Amino acid sequence: MSAPATIYGVGLGPGDPELMSVKAARLIANASVIAHFRKPGRPGNARTLVEGMLAADVIEEALEYPVTTEITLEDPAYADALRGFYDECVQRLLRHVSAGRDVTVLCEGDPFLYGSFMHLHSRLDGQAPIVVVPGISGMSGCWTASGVPITFGDDVLTVVPATLDEASLTERMRSIDALVVMKLGRNLPKVRRALQATGLAERAVYVERGTMAGEKVLPLAEKTDDEAPYFSMILVHGRGRRP
Amino acid sequence: MSAPATIYGVGLGPGDPELMSVKAARLIANASVIAHFRKPGRPGNARTLVEGMLAADVIEEALEYPVTTEITLEDPAYADALRGFYDECVQRLLRHVSAGRDVTVLCEGDPFLYGSFMHLHSRLDGQAPIVVVPGISGMSGCWTASGVPITFGDDVLTVVPATLDEASLTERMRSIDALVVMKLGRNLPKVRRALQATGLAERAVYVERGTMAGEKVLPLAEKTDDEAPYFSMILVHGRGRRP
Repeated sequence: MSAPATIYGVGLGPGDPELMSVKAARLIANASVIAHFRKPGRPGNARTLVEGMLAADVIEEALEYPVTTEITLEDPAYADALRGFYDECVQRLLRHVSAGRDVTVLCEGDPFLYGSFMHLHSRLDGQAPIVVVPGISGMSGCWTASGVPITFGDDVLTVVPATLDEASLTERMRSIDALVVMKLGRNLPKVRRALQATGLAERAVYVERGTMAGEKVLPLAEKTDDEAPYFSMILVHGRGRRP
Repeated sequence: MSAPATIYGVGLGPGDPELMSVKAARLIANASVIAHFRKPGRPGNARTLVEGMLAADVIEEALEYPVTTEITLEDPAYADALRGFYDECVQRLLRHVSAGRDVTVLCEGDPFLYGSFMHLHSRLDGQAPIVVVPGISGMSGCWTASGVPITFGDDVLTVVPATLDEASLTERMRSIDALVVMKLGRNLPKVRRALQATGLAERAVYVERGTMAGEKVLPLAEKTDDEAPYFSMILVHGRGRRP
């Protein structure tokens, strides 16, 4: 009997296709089935990143988020809709596994750091062999783009999702050495206020599309608008012992 | 006139050679000069990782740390010896740049996250073009090996070097959601006490040589000795909103 079919959760890295791992590139080029998340009507960032790498006869499973413009993130109906969606995704993947086909799930960044793949991973546990391939994180792409190491000496690094409420953000920022604020998007004004309240605004660097086409790096103080895309972060570099 | 010679600081990732990026693999295979840190008398982890990938006529610059067994980390003579060493390393690299040869510096993990490359980077600034290639961090290798995502939902991730004193470690651990303790080595007993003082010891996972041969993952509670090699970390996974 041959080995049972496996689900691979493959990190694609921060955006530059050459920054995916050799292992990820191999799995993607050899995949018989690929799956990836996307918003309805969009090609999807993960899928765009592997354009030109796929076998001609690859089977594609586009996992389209339910349309949620009528529901806010706080509405319990939103969580319900997502739960049903992830359950259905898992069934779609398991049908391939039952038929003996490996499935490669494309994951932006690093699958186990704030990645969508965890929603499938927790549901798949025990139902199929799973292999997770780490990727270079989006935050690493951003601090590399900034041109300065994020940590020095014994600096503590704190990674904060901008989706926290303003009081929590401010509290978390009070005692940092080095800081990364993820999931910026429309949370930028709130994050800016928290950085100002904690005296960090002058040290903050805004990075948009790190390692990708259209990369932007500028001091937050020089960013006069509040438009921040999905692929943007704020960094405060550590000031620990310099070499 | 051709482009001036460039110094590449190339992240090798967490240890599995297939987890280096496609870009890193290309630069290493095409390198005319490679440089890497090592302890005297050792082959060096970075150099071992690229075995079999190098051009036959590659020039190798092994940057050997000064022998420091007689001096403790706290002694100012230690910092002085290191400063002199890094200055000398930079001169060795710049001689190749002056002769028109690119230099590829091998960096374990991610160069801008607690990496030795920063010691060269800060000294080279302005003296030669520098390109930094991010890598999958050692901590990502460890949380991937643990089989569970490190963060869920809005979890804050705190990355703490075990080299901090015990009071600082304990203070930093008081308010964590998800935690990574780096640079473990002989600091394990101190880290264990801080985890116990903050009620985190039962949740802590010990990971040794994540993604490498000899990988070990076990609850810290089941690790009865205090032997931890350089390639080991402690993780406390977040408990935020599960999908």
